[in-house]
Amino acid sequence: MHRSQLGGLIIDCQTEDLAAAAEFWRRALGRRVRPSPDPIDRGYVVLDTGANELHIEVQKVDHPSRVHLDIETDDIEAELRRLEALGARRVRQVHDWWVMEAPTGHRFCVVQAQGSSFAEEANRWED
Amino acid sequence: MHRSQLGGLIIDCQTEDLAAAAEFWRRALGRRVRPSPDPIDRGYVVLDTGANELHIEVQKVDHPSRVHLDIETDDIEAELRRLEALGARRVRQVHDWWVMEAPTGHRFCVVQAQGSSFAEEANRWED
Repeated sequence: MHRSQLGGLIIDCQTEDLAAAAEFWRRALGRRVRPSPDPIDRGYVVLDTGANELHIEVQKVDHPSRVHLDIETDDIEAELRRLEALGARRVRQVHDWWVMEAPTGHRFCVVQAQGSSFAEEANRWED
Repeated sequence: MHRSQLGGLIIDCQTEDLAAAAEFWRRALGRRVRPSPDPIDRGYVVLDTGANELHIEVQKVDHPSRVHLDIETDDIEAELRRLEALGARRVRQVHDWWVMEAPTGHRFCVVQAQGSSFAEEANRWED
């Protein structure tokens, strides 16, 4: 058995000015920035969301701007296999997460679960 | 004074087979489809989410597949002006909502608020 759920949405911005991009989205969505060390150097700014809300990040990328979804899981390999069985394909591994492509053409990421309420709320899949 | 908040995420799919696209995303995200009349004919399938969660739809579109965000508001014209002041531009009106483009290049929609908890939870903006 493993678990997964929609964990967050990432606003990928093809920009040299991540601070300005994050400032637009922070103000557009009426959020605070979550304090973190060196967000600009690390390439992403986290907007503050509640424990039961989706995680929202504004990220500097080299590809065209888009929004991508993160699926969080307690077993990345099992979740990759489950999603492959639904028709998605692995694109590449980045650090400890995976980029996948849906049969609808959307890129999305499979990441380690972070939320405090993950264990109670996530979907349970029999492997 | 008007209010707005992030209201939902729409999975735009460039496909002739909306049912298959919605089935992939329904299963990938572990959601049920919310019953509604003629979703395929209307061009979008709504996934079931809680009252305090973001609205999630899988929509058939003619442009390349992407995910877009919906900002919901109780005053569309005031919200368009607020977002224009932040650097977004109006793209076009569709029925009673507006497509905008962020300075980061993302298209998003400004729609009438639907959620039952909107009045308490949304950001309040002094016009």
